Amino acid sequence: LFILAYLCINDPNGNRAVHYSESHAHLEEEKFRRKLKYFFMNPCDKYKARGRKPWKLILQIVKIAVVTIQLVSFGLSNQMVVQFKEENLMAFRHLFLKSFRDSSTDTYSIYTQHDVYTHIAFTVKQFLMLPSITVGNHQYEKEGDVYTPLTICQQFYRNGSISPANETFDIDAQVDEGDRPFLYLVESVCVFVIFRLLTVTVNFTLKAINLETVEYHELPDCYVFDIMITFDNKAHSGRITIDLDNDVHIYECRDWSVTDASPRNMYMLVLFDVIVILILMLSLLLCARSVKAGVHLQFEYTEFFSIHHGKHVSFSDRMEFINGWYILIIVSDVLTISGSLLKIIIQLKAVASYDLCSILLGTGTMLVWIGVLRYMGYFKKYNILIITLRAALPNVIRFTCCAAMIYLGYCFCGWIVLGPYHTKFRTLNVVSESLFSLINGDDMFATFKNMQHKSDVVWLFSRLYLYTFVSLFIYMVLSLFITLITDTYDTIKVRE
Amino acid sequence: LFILAYLCINDPNGNRAVHYSESHAHLEEEKFRRKLKYFFMNPCDKYKARGRKPWKLILQIVKIAVVTIQLVSFGLSNQMVVQFKEENLMAFRHLFLKSFRDSSTDTYSIYTQHDVYTHIAFTVKQFLMLPSITVGNHQYEKEGDVYTPLTICQQFYRNGSISPANETFDIDAQVDEGDRPFLYLVESVCVFVIFRLLTVTVNFTLKAINLETVEYHELPDCYVFDIMITFDNKAHSGRITIDLDNDVHIYECRDWSVTDASPRNMYMLVLFDVIVILILMLSLLLCARSVKAGVHLQFEYTEFFSIHHGKHVSFSDRMEFINGWYILIIVSDVLTISGSLLKIIIQLKAVASYDLCSILLGTGTMLVWIGVLRYMGYFKKYNILIITLRAALPNVIRFTCCAAMIYLGYCFCGWIVLGPYHTKFRTLNVVSESLFSLINGDDMFATFKNMQHKSDVVWLFSRLYLYTFVSLFIYMVLSLFITLITDTYDTIKVRE
Amino acid sequence: LFILAYLCINDPNGNRAVHYSESHAHLEEEKFRRKLKYFFMNPCDKYKARGRKPWKLILQIVKIAVVTIQLVSFGLSNQMVVQFKEENLMAFRHLFLKSFRDSSTDTYSIYTQHDVYTHIAFTVKQFLMLPSITVGNHQYEKEGDVYTPLTICQQFYRNGSISPANETFDIDAQVDEGDRPFLYLVESVCVFVIFRLLTVTVNFTLKAINLETVEYHELPDCYVFDIMITFDNKAHSGRITIDLDNDVHIYECRDWSVTDASPRNMYMLVLFDVIVILILMLSLLLCARSVKAGVHLQFEYTEFFSIHHGKHVSFSDRMEFINGWYILIIVSDVLTISGSLLKIIIQLKAVASYDLCSILLGTGTMLVWIGVLRYMGYFKKYNILIITLRAALPNVIRFTCCAAMIYLGYCFCGWIVLGPYHTKFRTLNVVSESLFSLINGDDMFATFKNMQHKSDVVWLFSRLYLYTFVSLFIYMVLSLFITLITDTYDTIKVRE
Amino acid sequence: LFILAYLCINDPNGNRAVHYSESHAHLEEEKFRRKLKYFFMNPCDKYKARGRKPWKLILQIVKIAVVTIQLVSFGLSNQMVVQFKEENLMAFRHLFLKSFRDSSTDTYSIYTQHDVYTHIAFTVKQFLMLPSITVGNHQYEKEGDVYTPLTICQQFYRNGSISPANETFDIDAQVDEGDRPFLYLVESVCVFVIFRLLTVTVNFTLKAINLETVEYHELPDCYVFDIMITFDNKAHSGRITIDLDNDVHIYECRDWSVTDASPRNMYMLVLFDVIVILILMLSLLLCARSVKAGVHLQFEYTEFFSIHHGKHVSFSDRMEFINGWYILIIVSDVLTISGSLLKIIIQLKAVASYDLCSILLGTGTMLVWIGVLRYMGYFKKYNILIITLRAALPNVIRFTCCAAMIYLGYCFCGWIVLGPYHTKFRTLNVVSESLFSLINGDDMFATFKNMQHKSDVVWLFSRLYLYTFVSLFIYMVLSLFITLITDTYDTIKVRE
Repeated sequence: LFILAYLCINDPNGNRAVHYSESHAHLEEEKFRRKLKYFFMNPCDKYKARGRKPWKLILQIVKIAVVTIQLVSFGLSNQMVVQFKEENLMAFRHLFLKSFRDSSTDTYSIYTQHDVYTHIAFTVKQFLMLPSITVGNHQYEKEGDVYTPLTICQQFYRNGSISPANETFDIDAQVDEGDRPFLYLVESVCVFVIFRLLTVTVNFTLKAINLETVEYHELPDCYVFDIMITFDNKAHSGRITIDLDNDVHIYECRDWSVTDASPRNMYMLVLFDVIVILILMLSLLLCARSVKAGVHLQFEYTEFFSIHHGKHVSFSDRMEFINGWYILIIVSDVLTISGSLLKIIIQLKAVASYDLCSILLGTGTMLVWIGVLRYMGYFKKYNILIITLRAALPNVIRFTCCAAMIYLGYCFCGWIVLGPYHTKFRTLNVVSESLFSLINGDDMFATFKNMQHKSDVVWLFSRLYLYTFVSLFIYMVLSLFITLITDTYDTIKVRE
Repeated sequence: LFILAYLCINDPNGNRAVHYSESHAHLEEEKFRRKLKYFFMNPCDKYKARGRKPWKLILQIVKIAVVTIQLVSFGLSNQMVVQFKEENLMAFRHLFLKSFRDSSTDTYSIYTQHDVYTHIAFTVKQFLMLPSITVGNHQYEKEGDVYTPLTICQQFYRNGSISPANETFDIDAQVDEGDRPFLYLVESVCVFVIFRLLTVTVNFTLKAINLETVEYHELPDCYVFDIMITFDNKAHSGRITIDLDNDVHIYECRDWSVTDASPRNMYMLVLFDVIVILILMLSLLLCARSVKAGVHLQFEYTEFFSIHHGKHVSFSDRMEFINGWYILIIVSDVLTISGSLLKIIIQLKAVASYDLCSILLGTGTMLVWIGVLRYMGYFKKYNILIITLRAALPNVIRFTCCAAMIYLGYCFCGWIVLGPYHTKFRTLNVVSESLFSLINGDDMFATFKNMQHKSDVVWLFSRLYLYTFVSLFIYMVLSLFITLITDTYDTIKVRE
Repeated sequence: LFILAYLCINDPNGNRAVHYSESHAHLEEEKFRRKLKYFFMNPCDKYKARGRKPWKLILQIVKIAVVTIQLVSFGLSNQMVVQFKEENLMAFRHLFLKSFRDSSTDTYSIYTQHDVYTHIAFTVKQFLMLPSITVGNHQYEKEGDVYTPLTICQQFYRNGSISPANETFDIDAQVDEGDRPFLYLVESVCVFVIFRLLTVTVNFTLKAINLETVEYHELPDCYVFDIMITFDNKAHSGRITIDLDNDVHIYECRDWSVTDASPRNMYMLVLFDVIVILILMLSLLLCARSVKAGVHLQFEYTEFFSIHHGKHVSFSDRMEFINGWYILIIVSDVLTISGSLLKIIIQLKAVASYDLCSILLGTGTMLVWIGVLRYMGYFKKYNILIITLRAALPNVIRFTCCAAMIYLGYCFCGWIVLGPYHTKFRTLNVVSESLFSLINGDDMFATFKNMQHKSDVVWLFSRLYLYTFVSLFIYMVLSLFITLITDTYDTIKVRE
Repeated sequence: LFILAYLCINDPNGNRAVHYSESHAHLEEEKFRRKLKYFFMNPCDKYKARGRKPWKLILQIVKIAVVTIQLVSFGLSNQMVVQFKEENLMAFRHLFLKSFRDSSTDTYSIYTQHDVYTHIAFTVKQFLMLPSITVGNHQYEKEGDVYTPLTICQQFYRNGSISPANETFDIDAQVDEGDRPFLYLVESVCVFVIFRLLTVTVNFTLKAINLETVEYHELPDCYVFDIMITFDNKAHSGRITIDLDNDVHIYECRDWSVTDASPRNMYMLVLFDVIVILILMLSLLLCARSVKAGVHLQFEYTEFFSIHHGKHVSFSDRMEFINGWYILIIVSDVLTISGSLLKIIIQLKAVASYDLCSILLGTGTMLVWIGVLRYMGYFKKYNILIITLRAALPNVIRFTCCAAMIYLGYCFCGWIVLGPYHTKFRTLNVVSESLFSLINGDDMFATFKNMQHKSDVVWLFSRLYLYTFVSLFIYMVLSLFITLITDTYDTIKVRE
């Protein structure tokens, strides 16, 4: 887009130059213009003009292919790990939490002192009987010859007397911890001082092996689950919420043998990653070279103009020499290379920062795919989308800023007023998500309906708030947005 | 917007004046025009023209910051209170209602006489055993040395005999009440005459202290929960709905000591609020002065014109002198000041009208943020949104009036016809919410699906009703709305 | 709209006539034109021109008010009846169906022979113990001195032997019925031949009085509930669905006395209805007169033109004389009058066809409100909506016809292919509702997600089907719809 | 559309020809042009011009009618079969799975070894007692005189020792199967080695007859249900999921008699199908003839032009002779004929590939209905939809390609990053469906809300991802789509 526009600007300059100083600088001028033109040519034209094969284009296509293959293979193996983790978590909840049901994940809580003791006793009993209960291959952790014990740890205010009836309290805000390790065969009774109690956590560690991977020709990994059951009484509101969570560590098993199956060689995977990195390095190098050439040409151009025409080249004209697409490719290459390096490390079971790796690889691949639009832009009618978006961007950003002010105003107001009466307005972040969904026509009736009708003033305010917000944003702001885009499209069409 | 438009109108007037009376009034005219121009300048221009620093602009920016900080801090401390209240309510439901489950909040009802007695007995038993059950720090209320008893109160028709079998009844519509106080250690059996019984309410009061605030360096408050369990048999339909609700009173505890933690000084908070109020006062004062100056200048202008040009200045021209933005700022300042005052009172635990305070503060802050658009309008391209909305407003209002007639027609019709067959059409208010959601594409299939298919005529009518309503409003009215906005935008663009 | 357009057409005709035959017909012409103009004037202009007070306008406004009041009062009293009915139904389900829960309304079924007997036994037991169980005022029905018994009725194939194992059957398609009345104190055991059994129905009748109305100053009514519990084994699929339904009859109690409360006089209500009918009659009369005047004038006009100008008046020109709004008012008046008559009959407890009455009143009121647009059209800028919709209508209808063909194609195809694999595609009617919701962006993910993945071909087909349908209709057809409306609006704006 | 456009192009050619060579080729030219014109005429014009009755049009209308009738009748009878199958499946789940509930279909799993044995024992017990339990007419299958037994089959790793505690394993990936047939009266106990166990499947076969069809005058069919209950422990994650599925075979019963009811003659249905096929054949033949005539005329035309005018006819001009609608009709006819043939085979109970048949018939019928648009196009204003869609198609496809790149980028990125934290991003396919739903404003708040908040980085990324995706696609891409369509519509309108 920019290139074409630029050459249109450039040509008349050249022509004018010809008129002004026809004799002495004509040849030089012509030569320089050809150089410029060549610089702004797309691969097809270059091939036609000088017969240069579009190596860079081919490299990019190869890159897209290998990067996508790498991402998909990583995703698929990741998927298996995620599923194993999640099924184990679910199994632990059913095994160690008393009368747990699938539907009660969010609301699993107890309300009486008696329940506290029976729930803890249940967990301990199930832990002790685990080998004869579980249908997975869970086992206790061993350190040397000693099994790691289950520990029950309570947090409580060190000291204090609370008497709501007399409206007096005397509390020592210092929090103490008391650990009580359980050997794996001894069960004991414990007593808590409920009113000073903050949390009780039950900790233990289990080990398992994910055998399912054998079927997909991958090597089974060893898993360590650090399970932590938390009884949370921080609020002292009469309700203790119970949550079971686990930390999972994955590493290669110490000693293994798999007969009658050939686990896919991990080193092949690493090799593939290395190839991907090499290809990306090459692409990065070529792009950097192009950018460098652009910067160089830009200086030449600036100098040429100041010498021959005595004109100063503006900053935006100069920026034309730095191709935005190259920047995109460089960014995506850097992201994907770092992601691939991290992936190799993960595959060698050294580190387990899946999240960072997936963000790097994912963002990299997304940019690579968006980069395909560049090559589509070589065919003239295919770049409507990019041209329009690019032209509309300044207006869109300005417009969004203004709309964001009103949006923020509504966010703050909704949070402070409706927060106590509607779960969708509890935190600022959720308010924003909820309003954003409303703009797009989602969950509107539920938002109206779940407003608690405790105070008439607030209820009336909520109706006014919701009706005006939706009307303003869907009917006015969104309509204006469409108009902005339409207007930009028309401008572009007329210009062409 | 107005200012610019006004100066465009004003300039030719001035020019024409020059032609008519070139000699005698020229200097005066010029002086007055400069005064006018200065009045309509924005801060940047004023700074450029006379080097006047934009104190008012800076004040407004400071105001936005402090108001938002105040709102957020209020919201965050409010959030803790709301959560404590809600968790307690949930705990009470689980403690005092027999076989209550989280999922049954809306539909908790009983259907047999036996259940009435067992449910009441359960509540009384749990109340009596509370200290050894609850995991919170709930205690009975004491008045002097006497604990406040639990009372069971029944409402019933004073007299009457009902015989549906004979289709006769003889009812005394006077409602009697019978209180039966329970000392906190005595349990007793009560018998109700079910067919005359209207409601049974079980009342008792509990006290608690919200200790969690210690963690956030705030002082723990004392809470009094007036709990009321209502067995509602007003309908005599064979179903008694049970509802537990509580009134909460929050106040400072009488006597307290917190060691090893420094509760944030409440007086600091009040100080901050006072500062906010002072800043708002200043802003209010300056705005009022500007408005006053505007009014003054307007009179001058009117006089000037009637003397020098013999022209009468129209009302809309005069209104140009009163800047709409100033009105907005004044309104928002007044709201926020009253909100802040109320907040100080709440913080001193004198009054607990959170709702009013949050509405005042919330609306004030929203207007303050919307007011930011004024400063954005100083940069030319940033005011598309405001200009278009302002220009489209008259048409939009007219259009909305017309659409509202059709909407109202559909509301009334849907309520009366579909009300008995669909919960989303039960009350006029819900009908309106439901239709509004339909317009925005929400919950459509559910609306179709949950229509009870009892009468074929009504069912057919419902399909016709829904299809026509959605088609008419989404495809026709909404499309026309977009067109209205587009049209306004085009008009504005051409004008510029 | 039409009127204005018509006068524009009319004026030049007149002018041309003046040119052609200036002397002889000029006066007559002028007189006739004035008559025409007066006919097409709106009330405001008439008042200005001749000082005629706008009685008709005032009548219409009064009509809107009384019709709406009538509808709302009818709706409110209806609401109470509906709620009483529904709560009773719910109570019956909980009382007479074994282990019924609120969540199981749709899926309440049994699967074993043992369950059939225990469920029936439970129902009978509960019926016999009803007086000591229910918390409502339900009583058995009495005919004379005899209580109506509970009857159990089974439907079965008269004869037959079925042997799926041998793949043979010999069935007599004739269905027999066997009634087994239960006296209200005798319980008995019954044995069914399950494989020939089609349905078992348990019938009994209960009576109740809705006392709640006393509170709202209405007279309590007597209710008769004919309860029917159906065990449906028609499918012989191993699953018997159980449904409890009731027919409700409402009538005035035979003998009643209410002390200490003054039930609102029903005759006042009837009086109000009569007043409403009278006002509607008047409005109907005046409209009919106007339409008659229009028809008369049209004949005059046609004659005038054929005599003086020798021109034939086209059909569409003639139709201008019949005001569409008058037709709307007449239709709405007729509907509301019949609805009000029916309402009087219902209020006198003679007939109970609520549905028909509510449809008549509802549609009537809706049209009355839409008719308000006519008066808004008197102010020029207020009729954008109506003018645009009217102008766009022909195109919209044509467009809708075409889109409907594609829509129908998708409906048939989705029903036949996806029906067995998705509950939202089971019947043609549900398919249409589901696709309509998809067009408006509702329930899309659920539609994708709930597709059963049994056959890969069908699953692939379903993805293709849904993606193409949504893309085609939301992105193409709906966009084109917006364009149609925009285009019409532009045409109208230019014309003005 | 094409025809009209073509004749406009064609006419001037002819006229020019007349000017160039008026004398010698004039007559021939005129004759050929008339032939061409006649070819491109629509049925109405043909009737007017030559009085030829529109047989083909009538045939098509008859075709639409019979094809739709056939589809509906097939769908209705299919519906009954589907319902019977589904109700049986539900009954089997309730009969053979211990403590199965309707709500637990997706999450029915067990977590302890004890449960494995009790669940299997329950299934076996229920199977043995089936005749005295079921309320359907299910019976055991018999082969000769011997009942087919229930078999329990386990899959397990042949050999292996797993010790997660020591982080060692030694597994033989070879999977063994062990069948254990149960005679229908003998119950036995079995022991599994859980840690090597992969799956346990319980298989048995039941037979039933669908008697309900008698009511709808169809012959009852015999059903064989091959039921398979799978206990899936492949993951060894501590959770065994249980699934009951069945294969259904439907065939005509061997020996039957139905008295007092006349099952609709199946041969009548087959006859109707044959008639449909004949009509379709005729339509296919006529269309093929037309296409052939078109091809023939095209060659004539090419020759004529190259001889008389020395011009080469372009490919796109030549394609005008092949009517796209005929191709559509041919495709739909071929699909419907094959579907009807398959339907006959199914109706004769020879084959049971319902899916293929329904896809063929469904797609065929859809195309037939879309074909109706052709006849609507004969009335001028009715073809806006088709013309606009056709004209917009190239741009729409180009645009979609570009948008698809960004969409794919987001898909890959969302899958890899958010997959582990959100069920809607687990597989690439679901990601695509979920994003597609988001674009259309569905399920947005749920998508935001159900994101697991385990890692802050990922959580922040998810917000960024969702906000940008929705903003980009709904506000920019969709708006641009509307603009594209609007633009095309305007172009077409101007051209006309």
